[in-house]
Amino acid sequence: MTERVSGIAASEGIAVAKAYLLIEPDLSFKKETISDTNAEKERFTTAIEKAIGELQAIRAKAAESLGVEEAQVFDAHIMVLSDPEMIGAIENAIENDKKNAETALQEATDMFIGMFESMEDNPYMQERAADIRDVRKRVLSHLLGVKLPDPASIDEEVIIVAKDLTPSDTAQLNKQYVKAFVTDIGGRTSHSAIMARSLEIPAIVGTNSITEKVAEGDLLIVDGMEGTVLIHPEETDISAYEKKAQAFASQKEEWQRLINEKTVTKDGVHVELAANIGTPKDLEGALGNGAEAIGLYRTEFLYMDSAELPTEEEQYNAYKEVLEGMEGKPVVVRTMDIGGDKELPYLELPEEMNPFLGYRAIRVSLDKDEIFRTQLRALLRASVHGPLRIMFPMIATLQEFREAKAVFEEEKEKLTGEGVKVADDIQVGIMIEIPAAAVLADQFAKEVDFFSIGTNDLIQYTMAADRMNERVSYLYQPYNPSILRLIKFVIDSAHKEGKWAGMCGEMAGDQTAVPILLGLGLDEFSMSATSILKTRSLLSELTTDDMKELAEKAVTECQTAEEVVGVVERSLNKTT
Amino acid sequence: MTERVSGIAASEGIAVAKAYLLIEPDLSFKKETISDTNAEKERFTTAIEKAIGELQAIRAKAAESLGVEEAQVFDAHIMVLSDPEMIGAIENAIENDKKNAETALQEATDMFIGMFESMEDNPYMQERAADIRDVRKRVLSHLLGVKLPDPASIDEEVIIVAKDLTPSDTAQLNKQYVKAFVTDIGGRTSHSAIMARSLEIPAIVGTNSITEKVAEGDLLIVDGMEGTVLIHPEETDISAYEKKAQAFASQKEEWQRLINEKTVTKDGVHVELAANIGTPKDLEGALGNGAEAIGLYRTEFLYMDSAELPTEEEQYNAYKEVLEGMEGKPVVVRTMDIGGDKELPYLELPEEMNPFLGYRAIRVSLDKDEIFRTQLRALLRASVHGPLRIMFPMIATLQEFREAKAVFEEEKEKLTGEGVKVADDIQVGIMIEIPAAAVLADQFAKEVDFFSIGTNDLIQYTMAADRMNERVSYLYQPYNPSILRLIKFVIDSAHKEGKWAGMCGEMAGDQTAVPILLGLGLDEFSMSATSILKTRSLLSELTTDDMKELAEKAVTECQTAEEVVGVVERSLNKTT
Repeated sequence: MTERVSGIAASEGIAVAKAYLLIEPDLSFKKETISDTNAEKERFTTAIEKAIGELQAIRAKAAESLGVEEAQVFDAHIMVLSDPEMIGAIENAIENDKKNAETALQEATDMFIGMFESMEDNPYMQERAADIRDVRKRVLSHLLGVKLPDPASIDEEVIIVAKDLTPSDTAQLNKQYVKAFVTDIGGRTSHSAIMARSLEIPAIVGTNSITEKVAEGDLLIVDGMEGTVLIHPEETDISAYEKKAQAFASQKEEWQRLINEKTVTKDGVHVELAANIGTPKDLEGALGNGAEAIGLYRTEFLYMDSAELPTEEEQYNAYKEVLEGMEGKPVVVRTMDIGGDKELPYLELPEEMNPFLGYRAIRVSLDKDEIFRTQLRALLRASVHGPLRIMFPMIATLQEFREAKAVFEEEKEKLTGEGVKVADDIQVGIMIEIPAAAVLADQFAKEVDFFSIGTNDLIQYTMAADRMNERVSYLYQPYNPSILRLIKFVIDSAHKEGKWAGMCGEMAGDQTAVPILLGLGLDEFSMSATSILKTRSLLSELTTDDMKELAEKAVTECQTAEEVVGVVERSLNKTT
Repeated sequence: MTERVSGIAASEGIAVAKAYLLIEPDLSFKKETISDTNAEKERFTTAIEKAIGELQAIRAKAAESLGVEEAQVFDAHIMVLSDPEMIGAIENAIENDKKNAETALQEATDMFIGMFESMEDNPYMQERAADIRDVRKRVLSHLLGVKLPDPASIDEEVIIVAKDLTPSDTAQLNKQYVKAFVTDIGGRTSHSAIMARSLEIPAIVGTNSITEKVAEGDLLIVDGMEGTVLIHPEETDISAYEKKAQAFASQKEEWQRLINEKTVTKDGVHVELAANIGTPKDLEGALGNGAEAIGLYRTEFLYMDSAELPTEEEQYNAYKEVLEGMEGKPVVVRTMDIGGDKELPYLELPEEMNPFLGYRAIRVSLDKDEIFRTQLRALLRASVHGPLRIMFPMIATLQEFREAKAVFEEEKEKLTGEGVKVADDIQVGIMIEIPAAAVLADQFAKEVDFFSIGTNDLIQYTMAADRMNERVSYLYQPYNPSILRLIKFVIDSAHKEGKWAGMCGEMAGDQTAVPILLGLGLDEFSMSATSILKTRSLLSELTTDDMKELAEKAVTECQTAEEVVGVVERSLNKTT
């Protein structure tokens, strides 16, 4: 019988395929004393051979689908299984101590792992310990006859079903065959959701129960618009959803025609649609979706993807690559937003009771200013390669902005003193993501070059609700009139001083919010690249005067988020 | 030589006395094998006797200074030391296993502690485990010849020097002899600071280093106005500070004359000065300091001082006691604010990454509504004993207020249906402590009976800075213009709908903030009882028109908190 499971619609689209369960299997075993040591050694050898065979197959597939570099990790795994010292230790334990193969494997590998992990200053050895753990899991699975999920080996169309997806899980997925994700936990801004939108595949997160209800190979339909999964769908369901998928595909095709167009409303007003990116690799997606600018370049990945602080040169190269890649289109770079939920093992930030209200972003930059100066120097040097805009995250007070700006000016002067060429039209602005900055936007507008409203944090602080905390997620309300009022004040304040105001939170690409934001006068909308064309299409159907009226109503008359949604829906139905 | 140490001025006043170090001593020891078991047993017996003698002396003093009930804990300790089973076990270990007395004591007590602690459902046995720990510490101190701090035994004037003071430390202090506190850590809203203000003794917190710089018995001067400690002061210092202390005392005396006066500004405008309380016991301090109302009754102590949820009857009795005690003056009761940093062991709230942005206060009440209904029933029943005002904490959306109000109305109807008498003029309002509620205050004002602005939380959310986190405490800025703007909007919105607006955060009793708050039109100021008379005196010197002008300047022209402070200082110097 068909069963329906609902969750949070995290990425649009429709998929019909078999379920692939990406779940850690049970690899527990009993410690036993065996009598036939030869049979046990043979059992062990067979498991090793199977594991090697499997790894060779995975490596070949990975090389083909992910690239030779990504496949190298499996070479390291195969080497571990061919290490005579380790194999010898295990066989000895079977032979002499009459341990069963599982126990012998566990104990010998524990010893090697302990040895490697104790070499704390040697990252290479630390990695070998991780390799041994991975390989042990694989050999154990063969000893126990349990199937291990091998995301890299997927070679038919599947829908991934998991509790949650980690970055390393998604790195191994073959994007050609993965048609959708469905997870137990997560929200619209969780890693799996963001990955799905960037891969442009449908995703449903936060179902709570999908891993319990679905078995390997079950046929599923995923509707990323509705947030529904159908398990064991009927033929009629399949044909209905295939029709819906076709309609969605032809709509996407239509959007695709807008790729080289400017973004213009029905009454001819131009706004800028920009993309949020994390690394220079994301440029392809941004340009492929018609981005008119980069509205948010999150530089913290430079710090997080590294075992130590990135050098000025490394940073310079990344910034240059993005500026050159955008071919004269503006790039807004956010200085590092480390802390909060983004930790750096090599920076040793303190444990905090409330990290979201703690030592992060500009607070760290102003405190550890050598790190901040290195980043600013790299940015200043890169500024000759394209129109650069710099913004500081988590600014709460004018004092902080003035301090950060002063450091910027100092480094600029130093560089020009050294004879280094630096652009003299770099705009310096701030993120508006702390209520205090929004409330005082008129004062800030006199000193900054631009605002970019970071709605993810602004909403969480204004509502005093951690957006990652499921118990209070009902308070994460982008359409709450209090949020809209703050946004209005920020935009009005910018315009009064002749500055521009953009938005780089989740909300800028939200189809219910966009009409209001247009009405409030937002100049730049920065979003996941995959939302750009859809938003361009929506904006082309809206008239600014109508939207001004709509926004005015939402801001002054509405009492709740629900009322705001109602006002937008009624207005759009009239318009289209 | 005199040394000066600075910290946060947490409670006013001046004290000159010897230092009493309330610091855990080093009780570590070596595990040794001894040969002369008789000598070791005698060493042990002597230590036990000394410990018993000491405990008897402490008990006698505690009975005298703290009351017989508080002294009973020491009876339990003496009983532990007379337990033949435990003493026997220790002596056996010395005799038979040749263990030194410290080791024998540690191991035998560990066994008993483990046994008692394993009886998880028996709170009496759990307490016995705690007793054994305390007693072991005392015996060890005698074995090692180390002095244990005995706060209950203090019988001369001292200044307590500690890393931090826990509630149990302060419970044991003899308030007659403790002249001041100085601590390494903490801020103006930490437990030690609040205790000092409620005891009306000077205190300096957050010195970072006082415990390192001061030795037992060092003469100290503490200036709770300046936030300075003088170690080994000169004679001239002592006489200068004694003069200052006298001036402060005569000023206090002058304030004392205002105890039965109304609070009236120079130009005859009346505002209400109320007290914040935690338990009915605090009424005495409130009335003794001339409170015109209770502006915040924090009911969470009913929940926290108990091993299980307080019954309706227990709550009813507490509410009735407060309402009756205030003899017709209004009492604002806040429904429970559990969660955040206030945990209830018996409620099992989830671990959260950011508890301040999590599941707390009204969020818990609406979710676990049986607990909420019990509290509302107790309040409704108590309402016949005095003018009761109820407010809900942590309201973010109108939806939440409507839900909470609906539960209130339901319980009211049920009670009257049961024939229980209930007042029909109970005001129902909300705390304004979440930015979203402040920004939407005009809409809230249509539905609530009053606002009470909770500045401690409002500031922390508006600035996105945990006020308990020392690394970002520079952002806890009550005078930031953004905070003042939100307060102004809340007060204006209340007045537009004919409602009143109060404040029950730390800021309401802050002498720099009071002039601005008067200018903004605040109707009720609720504070620590000990700040009331001083504030009444200050207000009597202020003119509302001048303060309106001052507030207008702070709200529209000032860019930073420092500028606001400057504006207030210049204005007050003109006034007085």
